[in-house]
Amino acid sequence: MNKIVPVILCGGSGTRLWPRSRKTKPKPFLPLVGERTMFEATLGRCGDSEQFAPPVIVTGTAHLQHVDEQSKAAPGATVIVEPEAKNTAAAIALAAARLPADAVMLVCPSDHHIADEQAFRAAAAAAAKLAEEDWLVAFGITASAPETGYGYIKRGAPLEGGYRVERFVEKPDLATAQAFLADGGYSWNGGIFAFRAGQFLAELAGHRPALAAAARESVENGQQDGNRFHPDAGAFAAIEPESVDYAVMEETDRAAMVPASMGWSDIGSWAALRAATDRDRDGNSVRGRAELVDCTGVFVDSDGPRISVIGLSDVAIIVDGDEVLVTTMEGAQKVGKLEGAAKQ
Amino acid sequence: MNKIVPVILCGGSGTRLWPRSRKTKPKPFLPLVGERTMFEATLGRCGDSEQFAPPVIVTGTAHLQHVDEQSKAAPGATVIVEPEAKNTAAAIALAAARLPADAVMLVCPSDHHIADEQAFRAAAAAAAKLAEEDWLVAFGITASAPETGYGYIKRGAPLEGGYRVERFVEKPDLATAQAFLADGGYSWNGGIFAFRAGQFLAELAGHRPALAAAARESVENGQQDGNRFHPDAGAFAAIEPESVDYAVMEETDRAAMVPASMGWSDIGSWAALRAATDRDRDGNSVRGRAELVDCTGVFVDSDGPRISVIGLSDVAIIVDGDEVLVTTMEGAQKVGKLEGAAKQ
Repeated sequence: MNKIVPVILCGGSGTRLWPRSRKTKPKPFLPLVGERTMFEATLGRCGDSEQFAPPVIVTGTAHLQHVDEQSKAAPGATVIVEPEAKNTAAAIALAAARLPADAVMLVCPSDHHIADEQAFRAAAAAAAKLAEEDWLVAFGITASAPETGYGYIKRGAPLEGGYRVERFVEKPDLATAQAFLADGGYSWNGGIFAFRAGQFLAELAGHRPALAAAARESVENGQQDGNRFHPDAGAFAAIEPESVDYAVMEETDRAAMVPASMGWSDIGSWAALRAATDRDRDGNSVRGRAELVDCTGVFVDSDGPRISVIGLSDVAIIVDGDEVLVTTMEGAQKVGKLEGAAKQ
Repeated sequence: MNKIVPVILCGGSGTRLWPRSRKTKPKPFLPLVGERTMFEATLGRCGDSEQFAPPVIVTGTAHLQHVDEQSKAAPGATVIVEPEAKNTAAAIALAAARLPADAVMLVCPSDHHIADEQAFRAAAAAAAKLAEEDWLVAFGITASAPETGYGYIKRGAPLEGGYRVERFVEKPDLATAQAFLADGGYSWNGGIFAFRAGQFLAELAGHRPALAAAARESVENGQQDGNRFHPDAGAFAAIEPESVDYAVMEETDRAAMVPASMGWSDIGSWAALRAATDRDRDGNSVRGRAELVDCTGVFVDSDGPRISVIGLSDVAIIVDGDEVLVTTMEGAQKVGKLEGAAKQ
């Protein structure tokens, strides 16, 4: 079996972890869990050279400096510099078009946390095996709560190391999510995929021919510059942005999933980050200088000033330069709508 | 009747409003309620030249710069610079020893808030009248809650414009405070006093002869420097620090009180400051840049950074330079015990 080619997607700029995450330094490039940044950790878990080839990183010009600085430990990494953000279908198409047709790609978001790297590598191996048989494989994250913020995957007939996908489900309401959890046949769609490059491009050409043609042309007319590749901007500009879920996964009849129980989190809010972070016996988690008195479940993160807290429970307090955020864990989902987050 | 001489005590350095209040800039010199500092407001409410003579300010060297800067609007103010802090009996003795024996002093802490200045001036007039008759007069603040942080005054037989003091009571426990409130005959001791200077010195000489003698000697050997007076440090050093309550008020048999219902607060905690501050219809109070979402009863005060708050109730959030404090109103009484407050 060939080595798996990690395709690391470094796009987007979420606002849900504002004020730590900012437009100029978004989530992938921050050390949110542990000492490494999310991006560094993503490279790290795809860093075993027995299993993985050097990574292909797809990013935009805005993040190139972060990518260069934080990919030094990944030998042989190449970077595809998107002329503009066109969502995941296009990003993956660029990477696929530059790989041999029989290469197996493992598409990984760069801002997810995975606690159990061994389980991740086992799932990657199982997914790669199915991808070699021309299945389009999604990681099905074991659902541990009725989350309404994720898409779900309903598994179908078993395959070796996984299952056919019976259907993909959009973000459900709470009652539906609870029913999914009780059912047991549903997993979260974590946005991690394994494809044989040639099969992915063939499926894309079948379901989104214009997108596939534009991506191919953009690569054919692109320019190499050291370890960077610049796709042609003209051809790329015509692309209609679409997620790989819509453009390919929900269209193909060869969708498969591998179950993955690996301590996954998209760190989609301060509450999610707290859950992924080591806590003391009172459930408090502190980064930076702080003193907590009579507190439980408090998450504190300061880039400088000392934070002193008395009497609070289940609250996140973030100090980042000229911004201070204090929110209940419940309220954390509204962070993106704050003036500071919206107008940054 | 002679004009009342305000004697403004600017000592101490509380920690209960840390981190806004710091050793180098304590509570009297901060604009905690409204635009004026507590000290400026104290001078202001004793500023009516029909009723009041120019003020005598008693302070230490540490606060001289603040006193000078903030007393510019008080014409004719003089400053007694204590060589060291010796509590209130000594501070008042210094002022009394420099005044004519028949002058009536109104001793005022410099860090209390009084919402109703008209009521304050009426109480001052009533107290001065009793002081001229050689009563030692305390303001009895109408008790509006079973506070355990204040001393109480039990009123006795009526006098013209006030009452004899039946007894002073130390800070009570909650049950006792509740009983006092139900009884109706108890007031808070607000630390505001009216004395005829000669009578005060005579009582002090009777009950604390060493203190009285040392204060007199310190004044006799002191030095004038412009509007400042420096008592002799050698004589002053021998003084045993004691509050005027212990040294004189609880000893004398001529203690009187005038009832004062004037929106008084010692602003003894962030909770007390919130209570004295204008609030919006959700009970929130904001100073500095802030955005509050789904909040009630939240008190926010920032010296620079924006504070964004989601979903909290009855919490104070203070940003001051390199310190951030987040506390429940209940927890606010523990602020003084925080590392930051204790080690400043």
